[in-house]
Amino acid sequence: MTLYQELATNFERLIQKGSLKVGDKMPSIRTVSKEYGVSINTVIQAYLVLESRSCIVSRPQAGFFVCEKVDLRLPVPQASNPSNNPKEQADDGLIGKVFRNFVNKEITQLSLSVPDESFFPVARLNKCLHKASQTLSSGGTGYDDIQGNFLLRKNVAKWSFTWAGNLGIDDLVSTSGAMHAISLAFMALTKPGDRIAVESPVYFGILQLAKNMGLKVIELPTHPVTGVDPDDVKARIGEIDICLLVSNFNNPLGSCMPEENKKAMVKLLGKHGIPLIENDLYGDVYFGPNRPKPCKAFDEEGMVLWCGSVSKTLAPGYRVGWMAPGKYLKDILKLKLFHSVSGTTLTQEAIGHFLETGRYEKHLAQMRKKLYANSLQFIRAISDYFPQGTKVSRPLGGFVLWVELEKGKDTGKFFDQALSQGISIAPGRMFTLQNQFYHCMRLNYGLPWSDGLDLQLKRLGQMLKQ
Amino acid sequence: MTLYQELATNFERLIQKGSLKVGDKMPSIRTVSKEYGVSINTVIQAYLVLESRSCIVSRPQAGFFVCEKVDLRLPVPQASNPSNNPKEQADDGLIGKVFRNFVNKEITQLSLSVPDESFFPVARLNKCLHKASQTLSSGGTGYDDIQGNFLLRKNVAKWSFTWAGNLGIDDLVSTSGAMHAISLAFMALTKPGDRIAVESPVYFGILQLAKNMGLKVIELPTHPVTGVDPDDVKARIGEIDICLLVSNFNNPLGSCMPEENKKAMVKLLGKHGIPLIENDLYGDVYFGPNRPKPCKAFDEEGMVLWCGSVSKTLAPGYRVGWMAPGKYLKDILKLKLFHSVSGTTLTQEAIGHFLETGRYEKHLAQMRKKLYANSLQFIRAISDYFPQGTKVSRPLGGFVLWVELEKGKDTGKFFDQALSQGISIAPGRMFTLQNQFYHCMRLNYGLPWSDGLDLQLKRLGQMLKQ
Repeated sequence: MTLYQELATNFERLIQKGSLKVGDKMPSIRTVSKEYGVSINTVIQAYLVLESRSCIVSRPQAGFFVCEKVDLRLPVPQASNPSNNPKEQADDGLIGKVFRNFVNKEITQLSLSVPDESFFPVARLNKCLHKASQTLSSGGTGYDDIQGNFLLRKNVAKWSFTWAGNLGIDDLVSTSGAMHAISLAFMALTKPGDRIAVESPVYFGILQLAKNMGLKVIELPTHPVTGVDPDDVKARIGEIDICLLVSNFNNPLGSCMPEENKKAMVKLLGKHGIPLIENDLYGDVYFGPNRPKPCKAFDEEGMVLWCGSVSKTLAPGYRVGWMAPGKYLKDILKLKLFHSVSGTTLTQEAIGHFLETGRYEKHLAQMRKKLYANSLQFIRAISDYFPQGTKVSRPLGGFVLWVELEKGKDTGKFFDQALSQGISIAPGRMFTLQNQFYHCMRLNYGLPWSDGLDLQLKRLGQMLKQ
Repeated sequence: MTLYQELATNFERLIQKGSLKVGDKMPSIRTVSKEYGVSINTVIQAYLVLESRSCIVSRPQAGFFVCEKVDLRLPVPQASNPSNNPKEQADDGLIGKVFRNFVNKEITQLSLSVPDESFFPVARLNKCLHKASQTLSSGGTGYDDIQGNFLLRKNVAKWSFTWAGNLGIDDLVSTSGAMHAISLAFMALTKPGDRIAVESPVYFGILQLAKNMGLKVIELPTHPVTGVDPDDVKARIGEIDICLLVSNFNNPLGSCMPEENKKAMVKLLGKHGIPLIENDLYGDVYFGPNRPKPCKAFDEEGMVLWCGSVSKTLAPGYRVGWMAPGKYLKDILKLKLFHSVSGTTLTQEAIGHFLETGRYEKHLAQMRKKLYANSLQFIRAISDYFPQGTKVSRPLGGFVLWVELEKGKDTGKFFDQALSQGISIAPGRMFTLQNQFYHCMRLNYGLPWSDGLDLQLKRLGQMLKQ
């Protein structure tokens, strides 16, 4: 057990024994840090674990409190335990079925992994776009720098201070979104037959790309709160050529690796010469007090290829992403040039302007508040309406929930039933190559909360109970 | 000899024998067509060949005339004859050297293959961009259709009437420029070790991408006027897995395949099940009476992947391109999704608006006029200033010239000398994997003509004479 897990378990016992009663305020983080002689960060991680176990709840500007209805609340799913049978594969038919309804506006889109467009600062972005067309020579019609727009890279580099990063402008390459960054990383670092380790469940786009490029996928056990455990990777280290992790608010689980695990992971992989592609596209959408650091923050040897984008926070349609590829920079630049010459000048400059004004922090603060409130509403609704035995993740960032039903349920079939009622869900089997997660689904809570949405969740619950 | 070549040779003899004297008006195309019982198109091709041989010259709205100074004008280079030694390779150092100075505004950039930004309709494009931000739901922040923006595809499909094409909206996939289209085609249709046939010389980006993806490159003999001969392909057909051609105003030669050769090429490749990637990004920049048809116009079996973009005519920085991949559509769509999700919504919609208004035709008409005049000025200056023995292409479209010096000259070394005088040229060795074209160079005439530019060409000539 790590230090923060020990601390959490200790507090859980205090609550079970009644030393801390429902409604009691938890001791302040500073106090615990002092009393136990541990870092502030360790206490925060411990409290987050307690929160994920429904033992305590945080109230803005008031602190943490012992929960009122510990026993009634839904448990968090167990860590996954994928079988990694090489014969199993993606259910492309299922993915195609869900994709077909992605653009239908009549449907309540709980299956997407992007916030509703009402979350984006459209008017302000339009102004930045206009400004970009004025500040760029020849209105942005010219080819951009191959490494990427200067203003964008400057501001992404500056913004890295939020996770104690110290990126320079020349450490960054712009890309057409984070998937483009991952595609470049795969092209630079892998050959067919190479074995790539990923979380399980994992975003299906990663699986599709990996399979398409002839890679062998190793799915790692993943915990809904703490993500992949470095010890699990260590046990299979000889089988791994490259690793891809979404260390902060992984999609679909919502897990966030504790800082010490990230540190250990970077050290372990570095020791064995295994590059780590880190897709940190949800890191800015945190609900806790601070932005969680990415693994990149602990990367001393340039082995971590840190990827990000504004697709989940500002404008997916702008196709603006980036990567800090560490010591692989030259190879990545070459591939970017060969395959697509350069990126869209205008949208990169527009995002550069948006970041430059400092609006990003204000926008994120609002977005986080709304999303966190939504996540609580969704969990409450699931607790109220879904059948007994349901488990649900407690993400502390991002905008998706992972719901586990009782074994035997088939969310692939349930998809059709829900769709006939105008609701689209993402069945669990989409997020793995293995025969697992049939009784799971991903729900997007990045939709404007309303009584109508509550009613839709109620309908889902009723259908599941039938 | 093909019909049009026969016809051209016949007329050349008439001129040599004095039956047609310098200054005489050539018989009208209609008359020749009637008298010889051949198609209008065959006569046009014959006259273009005569023009390229400096036998005749066209005067707008007056017809073709026998030239005044036949003997004084520079000859066109011979067809290339690449050796295809598998051990030879790209001169990456040379390419890197030329690339490093691409963005330096102090230098006369004769090395680029993109028209100067003053050729682009920047103000009008800005208006279209603004309109796009208004017409798109949520200001273009949302993901676009995976196949590509509807308005863009609708108008590219409509525009295909200019080459007698009949593309439908659903035949087209949008891409981030033409190189992205080629990258997708390579990924869909090739595996490492496959043999790809291309023109020689050919744009170095194609060679870099092909080598990077493990393909074996077969360079085909290419004529500066008529491009690749189907008979040369036929002779090597068993060695070819896939073919890539820039059939209209190929970069760097400026060649344009005669229609009957295109037809024969499509038939030949189709018969042997060899897909043809056709990069038609210069086709709209023609100086003759009509837009030359692409090979795609003769593609009955869906074996031609027709690629295009607005990077050479409107806005390279918008990264808007497309392809009509024929029967490979599904594979291309899948790869586009896996590697980059979708394209930039806003710039695609803006180009859609631009095409929709009909401004494109007006803009192209102006651009062609300027570029054609420029090409004549450049050829005149080269004729006046460059050393004896110089040969130069006579492109009837596009914006680059291919200059061949006397054997023994090294344009790779000459690059440094020219650069020290503030002039950047593209050495011929960049455009091949073989040890050839050392005495050749590509010059971009897509720059605003001025006395200063004339002076720079004079300086180039003086340096070459030393």
